[in-house]
Amino acid sequence: MTTIIPSPELIASFTDIVGPGNALAMPAEIAPYLVESRGLYRGTTPLVLRPGSVEEVSRILQLASETRTPIVPQGGNTGHVAGGVPREGKADVVLSLERLNRIRDIDPVGNVIVADAGCILADIQKAADDVDRLFPLSLGSEGSARIGGNLSTNAGGTAVLAYGNMRQLCLGLEVVLPTGEVWDGLRRLKKDNTGYDLRDLFIGAEGTLGVITGAVLKLFPKPRGHQVAFAGVKGVEDALALFERASSLCGPALTGFELMPRLGIEFTTRHIHGVRDPMETVHPWYVLIDISTPDSAESAERMVESLLEAGIADGFIENAVIAQSDGQRKALWHMRESMSPAQKPEGGSIKHDVSVPVSSIPAFMAEADAIVTKAVPGARICAFGHVGDGNIHYNISQPVDADTQAFLGRWREVNAIVHAIVLKYNGSISAEHGIGQLKRDELAAIRSPIEIELMQRIKHAFDPAGIMNPDKVLRAD
Amino acid sequence: MTTIIPSPELIASFTDIVGPGNALAMPAEIAPYLVESRGLYRGTTPLVLRPGSVEEVSRILQLASETRTPIVPQGGNTGHVAGGVPREGKADVVLSLERLNRIRDIDPVGNVIVADAGCILADIQKAADDVDRLFPLSLGSEGSARIGGNLSTNAGGTAVLAYGNMRQLCLGLEVVLPTGEVWDGLRRLKKDNTGYDLRDLFIGAEGTLGVITGAVLKLFPKPRGHQVAFAGVKGVEDALALFERASSLCGPALTGFELMPRLGIEFTTRHIHGVRDPMETVHPWYVLIDISTPDSAESAERMVESLLEAGIADGFIENAVIAQSDGQRKALWHMRESMSPAQKPEGGSIKHDVSVPVSSIPAFMAEADAIVTKAVPGARICAFGHVGDGNIHYNISQPVDADTQAFLGRWREVNAIVHAIVLKYNGSISAEHGIGQLKRDELAAIRSPIEIELMQRIKHAFDPAGIMNPDKVLRAD
Repeated sequence: MTTIIPSPELIASFTDIVGPGNALAMPAEIAPYLVESRGLYRGTTPLVLRPGSVEEVSRILQLASETRTPIVPQGGNTGHVAGGVPREGKADVVLSLERLNRIRDIDPVGNVIVADAGCILADIQKAADDVDRLFPLSLGSEGSARIGGNLSTNAGGTAVLAYGNMRQLCLGLEVVLPTGEVWDGLRRLKKDNTGYDLRDLFIGAEGTLGVITGAVLKLFPKPRGHQVAFAGVKGVEDALALFERASSLCGPALTGFELMPRLGIEFTTRHIHGVRDPMETVHPWYVLIDISTPDSAESAERMVESLLEAGIADGFIENAVIAQSDGQRKALWHMRESMSPAQKPEGGSIKHDVSVPVSSIPAFMAEADAIVTKAVPGARICAFGHVGDGNIHYNISQPVDADTQAFLGRWREVNAIVHAIVLKYNGSISAEHGIGQLKRDELAAIRSPIEIELMQRIKHAFDPAGIMNPDKVLRAD
Repeated sequence: MTTIIPSPELIASFTDIVGPGNALAMPAEIAPYLVESRGLYRGTTPLVLRPGSVEEVSRILQLASETRTPIVPQGGNTGHVAGGVPREGKADVVLSLERLNRIRDIDPVGNVIVADAGCILADIQKAADDVDRLFPLSLGSEGSARIGGNLSTNAGGTAVLAYGNMRQLCLGLEVVLPTGEVWDGLRRLKKDNTGYDLRDLFIGAEGTLGVITGAVLKLFPKPRGHQVAFAGVKGVEDALALFERASSLCGPALTGFELMPRLGIEFTTRHIHGVRDPMETVHPWYVLIDISTPDSAESAERMVESLLEAGIADGFIENAVIAQSDGQRKALWHMRESMSPAQKPEGGSIKHDVSVPVSSIPAFMAEADAIVTKAVPGARICAFGHVGDGNIHYNISQPVDADTQAFLGRWREVNAIVHAIVLKYNGSISAEHGIGQLKRDELAAIRSPIEIELMQRIKHAFDPAGIMNPDKVLRAD
């Protein structure tokens, strides 16, 4: 598709749909919609539209289809792969879902919440909490990420171990198709085997097949018992052995199992306000263990205590503490969630969101560490993440006193090194952040031609005019 | 597609691929492949092929594509919607997966099993058990159903409440596409957000998009505690109230919650060898409660006892028993699983596999009972099922002494009555059995044109020649 700057008439027609107050074009107004959260990508747009209803979204897409105008749906713009920002040097129109932020219904008996795609994740969590239910999706950016973006990237986060990704948390969807037609798939059913799984096709499609405007999400009874422990371990092997023990002993009550390196504890205690090392002893690695039991506080206590006893007896745990209050539980999670922001003051950081089969984590980490420190002497590897899911955020802070720009200039090179090891272990180059623009060409390079071809056929079947978020996930030509 | 009887040359070419011993054409040999499990459908075929490798499946499909020969993949032929049998009066070639029955790998540390699609479900359960792991999919026909069929129908069963449908139990797939190309999606990753969700598109597609030949399935640590209780309740409302209580008290430890009517207890005790009513009191409805705890037998005991105490205190339970041994636990489940076979000796039975939002179950049941008994005076409604999933097998036995054929002749009419009520409650006309031929035209009638259109586009994108299981799920023309 060649770049066609929309004519003033076309801009006026789009503006008519949402009203002049919700069609932004001034540089200062549109600036926040253009930059990907890490600043790696900066796009261009003639127009940001902020529709206030599904009907307006539909009219926008219909007009876009007729005029072959590329549309980029955007939620909270917290993504890490430049999937929600317009392309650079093109004339993509941004369609922000931010005004579609109504909770349509909440049913604590049926355990569902029906929400507009523009609802902020934290608001959904709060609405569930208000009716004594849990919406378990939880991630660092939950105060600004929006449900439509969470769905479009099949978001993961810290509760995947017990509750699954966004795909497992969604029962039904409402999607505006590229033509403006609305697919009403807002079902509240736990079981429904009636034809192809359209829902899961739109989830994780990063806005390239249509615009998600509403969703039925699952709620859960709130666990009555909640305990968080923090344990120092000798190495990644021991962390994995402890995970296996925890998983067998606690089953689905194991709601979090997060790995952190000593360096991460140093970064967070140094840079993040209020974070303190909860232990007096120093360990090479740490795990945060989160346990939720349905019935009582006592059962969670019993469980965390037996787990720590078993872990110490087995020799997997060097030292451990159990949070004694809600405040302490939050403080431990705050430390874990600060791992990524705490890297910023340390200079440039090259990031990887990868997964490998759980049992390959130690081998993958050892091999990656060796090759990366050889390629970038002095590199400070701060790899942390969701061990139970096999998902490691393999982040690399620049060497002390290195030139930040020169270090960041090696982003692709270092990615290639790490991803090669990931592939050796049959892993994924994007465990939870998606593909967007950042990993699009790499995906095409590593996947079989038939797999890319099947995806291209789906794209073409749903969006023959190629107006939906072009050049994301798949190359547009 | 018009019916073209394959030429002797084509038959010979197909036969060459699998060898003469595995290309069946004699009426006695092919008979078992033609009839759907309930006998409602009987198809025709010139040839049943039993390939012994993925390579042979690939060559069969390549030849079928070149010659436009319709192919019907078949697993254990235990389906209930005639999705796995050839069409009547056509010349579909049956491709049986029964010889592809090798377990390729089992990894108790990584908690995965990799299996050929033709493996029998019970064999997968056994292989998992042998390494102290659980493969939770469990259903009445598990002794003959095959994994490829379970995947192609997104099978449910009795453990969905805690573990999900087949879609939630599968990490990766190997699929032979209509052209014979093989998509290797045999990934072992819990998190992998790299493009469109091809896996979940093939799962539940009933063999209309390609032939699943292998899968990576999830295993789970075996629960150490297991308790089964059986409770008599006054009505469906009380059963649902008890479910809510159980779900909040036990969380994911609630691994089964099945509803049965008094009539079902009478049918099973009357006709099924070894089934006895476990209680001396008589109740209008019963629930089977299955609890599995990860850590210990004691925690399961504690949990089931507190649940029954709470249920009695709340007035939801009239009487209850707890199984005292593994034998008693099995006996209670055997009773539940005999609900459907026990209807056979009672004459004809018109069946519905429907779901509604969980909170609508009592209203749906009351309304359906009233309308059905009005339409078919004397009809004996034996509705049972997975209450926690909203999935009711709303089965209707013929009136005593009625003419069986005349009663079964009203199948479509009664279906229409029941399904109209299901749709009123925004339910599904196929909760777990799929669409096949039985519900294909009904699906087209009740779903929005755009939804059917999207499915047709997917079908066309994957199978442009229309050779894959034509006329199943969607009409072929």
